[in-house]
Amino acid sequence: MTYSYVSHLECPICEKTYDTEERHQLCTCGSPLLVRYHLDRIKAEVERLSIGERSRDLWRYHELLPVRSPEHVVSLGEGMTPLLHLPRLGGEYGLARLYMKDEGLVPTGSFKARGAAVGVSKAKELGVKGLAMPTNGNAGAAWALYAARAGIEATIVMPQDAPSITRSEVALAGANLYLVDGLISDAGKIVAQAVADRGLYDASTLKEPYRIEGKKTMGIEIAEQLGWTMPDVILYPTGGGVGLIGIHKALLELREIGWLQGPLPRLVAVQAEGCAPIVKAWQEKKERSEFWHDSTTVAFGINVPKALGDFLVLRALYDTDGAAIAVSDEELLQEQKRIARLEGTFICPEGAAAFVAARKLAQSGWIKPDEKMVVLNTGAGIKYPETAVVSPPLLNIGDRIPAK
Amino acid sequence: MTYSYVSHLECPICEKTYDTEERHQLCTCGSPLLVRYHLDRIKAEVERLSIGERSRDLWRYHELLPVRSPEHVVSLGEGMTPLLHLPRLGGEYGLARLYMKDEGLVPTGSFKARGAAVGVSKAKELGVKGLAMPTNGNAGAAWALYAARAGIEATIVMPQDAPSITRSEVALAGANLYLVDGLISDAGKIVAQAVADRGLYDASTLKEPYRIEGKKTMGIEIAEQLGWTMPDVILYPTGGGVGLIGIHKALLELREIGWLQGPLPRLVAVQAEGCAPIVKAWQEKKERSEFWHDSTTVAFGINVPKALGDFLVLRALYDTDGAAIAVSDEELLQEQKRIARLEGTFICPEGAAAFVAARKLAQSGWIKPDEKMVVLNTGAGIKYPETAVVSPPLLNIGDRIPAK
Repeated sequence: MTYSYVSHLECPICEKTYDTEERHQLCTCGSPLLVRYHLDRIKAEVERLSIGERSRDLWRYHELLPVRSPEHVVSLGEGMTPLLHLPRLGGEYGLARLYMKDEGLVPTGSFKARGAAVGVSKAKELGVKGLAMPTNGNAGAAWALYAARAGIEATIVMPQDAPSITRSEVALAGANLYLVDGLISDAGKIVAQAVADRGLYDASTLKEPYRIEGKKTMGIEIAEQLGWTMPDVILYPTGGGVGLIGIHKALLELREIGWLQGPLPRLVAVQAEGCAPIVKAWQEKKERSEFWHDSTTVAFGINVPKALGDFLVLRALYDTDGAAIAVSDEELLQEQKRIARLEGTFICPEGAAAFVAARKLAQSGWIKPDEKMVVLNTGAGIKYPETAVVSPPLLNIGDRIPAK
Repeated sequence: MTYSYVSHLECPICEKTYDTEERHQLCTCGSPLLVRYHLDRIKAEVERLSIGERSRDLWRYHELLPVRSPEHVVSLGEGMTPLLHLPRLGGEYGLARLYMKDEGLVPTGSFKARGAAVGVSKAKELGVKGLAMPTNGNAGAAWALYAARAGIEATIVMPQDAPSITRSEVALAGANLYLVDGLISDAGKIVAQAVADRGLYDASTLKEPYRIEGKKTMGIEIAEQLGWTMPDVILYPTGGGVGLIGIHKALLELREIGWLQGPLPRLVAVQAEGCAPIVKAWQEKKERSEFWHDSTTVAFGINVPKALGDFLVLRALYDTDGAAIAVSDEELLQEQKRIARLEGTFICPEGAAAFVAARKLAQSGWIKPDEKMVVLNTGAGIKYPETAVVSPPLLNIGDRIPAK
């Protein structure tokens, strides 16, 4: 049995190809590389029905993943997260078919685990002994922990303002952790220097080609969980945009192998008003975004002033008649509370941003009341205690609860 | 099709029975009540094989759960958590077949979600409009959030020293939250008064019979994930002990309906040295524990000085030739770090306590090298940031990573 039908790496700009048996980072032209598969062979040889009986993690889709040998799989049980119907929130939005894909239920409490699982597994298969990356926190935590399980040494650099719990995760994993008095772009420069000096594997976003493959499993799961159909709209909080790129890639691959039919869902990139380079580029119908100066948002994971894969995100929006929309910090913090009250789930600020966008797009009529919509919540709210500080009343022993 | 084969409630002390269509709390004799099922009918009518194709949450076992109608199910996708093989840690312990059941991957990041899901669903079925409970944090967070999804008003009282993130969860859920300058037992007295004054449903540990049923699904899942076989040993960090009671109950029920054969695994209750009433009672071969004065441990979830279900925990230990063992805070904090470094998973302090016990029992020969052992990690480490505070070096923009 063929475990992976991986074929080669391909540059989406200059179409140059590379071998997946060797380490590659960016294309010589500077573009990220995409993984290509023998889709015709998968179509002929793999039964969609057989998936249902497999392991309850993202490795159930191993034919569409780049790891050639199951012995190199480094897993903590990631994937197959719930797709929850939200009837009460949907009622408020005027959307009867509102769903949340809850990525809080993965190792490290963030969807970054998907990229790390596949990225670290492939790094292990390629014989990598040490990797380095800049991070806004969650990706670094995930890569450090998966690297620990794989026995790979990790070097992680993050802004000192990144969520403090992610420091603990990286340090506990035994990785080399450094903070920087700056942004993720400043951390990136320090990592690039370390990569050059020490011959480390560069695990920066899209500088290795395999993280996208982990993220794309969100798209495959949505399709499987909807009985191998597609929703009408998918909303995704967009920083580096790898998840959106991955979902788009997954749906195209699934259509190619015949597991899905029909038009793709409209993909929506959601950003914060304080950091909205993709939104600006989309509004101006551009192919690439510009660096967003003095970026700021409480949704730290989407504070990415310039994404290396911006052109791939924008292609996904244009190709699917999607959209890009920015929301304010105030709105997303309000929405985070409403969702907890109405649906009992404490989501991350980035996920809350996507729900604000859903509300607005429903109000404007861009999403119709009978359309099926999936919102990605990219992580657990418990990783962001500072977004929900409360001051409950303090009782003494023997007190009664006061009347309201 | 019969969704639930629930039959009645039964007192494990005086054997008095109660109807599951009415609200009941404790037996008139003061004991917790247990849910009984028509196991003979399940044996005759339900195929074990059919389970494999069902929803990937604990509701796949609906015949063995107390909710009669699927429309009353309140779910956030809880259950079917990973059962991970830990080869590197097992190597250190001298145990080739060491597994962790990772309950960090559930809504709220704590296994308390299982009890809340089933408890709140049944409360909804019984028409409950308001519930109240004391908590060490995680249970209150889970019940508040599930109650929000069910549209039930929750009143939660917790010690002011409980993990602060759980305050945010309860408050965000819209519950009535109070802190108390005392222990969970003091919170319990305040809740008892509120229940008496206001006619609330008392959701305190084991004062409603259905939480055990949610927790028991951990045992069913372990059996299913091991191909409907049992491990040799299960270790469980024990505060109120509901999970241990539930796992024991589940395995007995599965054997009764013919889905499992053979001897039960030896069940091990793990406590902290600063709060070890079950260990003391087990060492003295007693039927019940005594209140543990001045209890203290960093593993806050197992700081329970006297559990209402202590006699059921002790029965489970005696019935399975199990054991009870206490570990120090220093040991468990060390083990938490080792596990992150070796296996890439950041577990909670309570889970780490159970791993210390595993190490000790393997060293003492109580667990044999070829035995299959499952350790319950009851929650995500990210909910306990104070157990892993780190001080990484701070770089300035443009710095190089210093040589080691």
